[in-house]
Amino acid sequence: MSDDTGDIQALISQIARLPGLGPRSARRIVLQLIRKRSGQMAQLASLMSQVAENARECVICGNITEQETCSICRDDLRATGEICVVTDVADLWALERGRAFRGRYHVLGGSLSALDEVGPEELRIPDLVRRIPEEHVTEVILALAATVEGQTTAHYIAEALEGSGVTVTGLAQGVPIGGELDYLDDGTITAALRARRRI
Amino acid sequence: MSDDTGDIQALISQIARLPGLGPRSARRIVLQLIRKRSGQMAQLASLMSQVAENARECVICGNITEQETCSICRDDLRATGEICVVTDVADLWALERGRAFRGRYHVLGGSLSALDEVGPEELRIPDLVRRIPEEHVTEVILALAATVEGQTTAHYIAEALEGSGVTVTGLAQGVPIGGELDYLDDGTITAALRARRRI
Ligand SMILES: [Zn+2]
Ligand SMILES: [Zn+2]
Repeated sequence: MSDDTGDIQALISQIARLPGLGPRSARRIVLQLIRKRSGQMAQLASLMSQVAENARECVICGNITEQETCSICRDDLRATGEICVVTDVADLWALERGRAFRGRYHVLGGSLSALDEVGPEELRIPDLVRRIPEEHVTEVILALAATVEGQTTAHYIAEALEGSGVTVTGLAQGVPIGGELDYLDDGTITAALRARRRI
Repeated sequence: MSDDTGDIQALISQIARLPGLGPRSARRIVLQLIRKRSGQMAQLASLMSQVAENARECVICGNITEQETCSICRDDLRATGEICVVTDVADLWALERGRAFRGRYHVLGGSLSALDEVGPEELRIPDLVRRIPEEHVTEVILALAATVEGQTTAHYIAEALEGSGVTVTGLAQGVPIGGELDYLDDGTITAALRARRRI
């Protein structure tokens, strides 16, 4: 607005670019943060810089962690021989909230897309194939979105795992056509996982 | 989600409490910030801590500034003898975007409310009364919301200014009943300001 609020305006533009936000909501957020005398903004800033410094991808599964490997990969009780493949960490979190799955994960970080030049390497599919013998995996559950991209990716993975002796299953019912996993309620996602079927 | 992501989960809860956001949008924001390799999160964090340190209210008008007084109060060209009274800094920004008003502002920071124990002192109304002779003010424009609270506050201020010799006007047309200023488009707010009338 004016020359002495350059940082404030820069902060608003940065926040406005975050997913789901725009200039108006960014202005309201920044004003609320400035107004709160409790130091909410300073607290948020320091938490954010800590996370920026420490958060990284688990070298095994791609989950977000503050260590070399995530707590799920480090937990021996979760070496059940099952790996659940998800598109995104948000999907992993959704499944963890449902508490239905006690195995380990493999986070692709996207879907196959010739257009965006996203190939198997980018999605860490070779890493997944390597994990099968290393972790004595018996079942790979493809918990991917019921979209064209999700299903294309699922088929590619199912083919890549052929001959590895692993059973490949997919979420069966409950995932609506065109539905993204992260938008389902926890009950639906749990039911879909329980009713999973061979692909 | 798991013990080694305590900071990440804390960051998500803090972001989820911001206006207009919730747990799902907070998760998406944090994941996007972590994913971006460009250091977007570190940049946002440092900008935020700078603003937290430096942003404060202008001692004259209540606008947000990084100095003792805001750039509008320091600008002699804006000593037009007009003061525009707004509920909130967001409203001041909306008026500035419209570029129709070239005088100064007085930010109340709220509306009169017996229920919430917000009285004239909290809204800095005595400060406004003192500004009239000090700044040779000839017109006070009450750019308050067309809500019961906004209009109650407008009437209180009009009475407090009686006998000060100042002309008190209000936004005339264009502000819909029940409408908050910050939600209007810039053109509407500009038209309402131009058509202001005596109260
Ligand atoms: Zn892991
Ligand atoms: Zn000022």
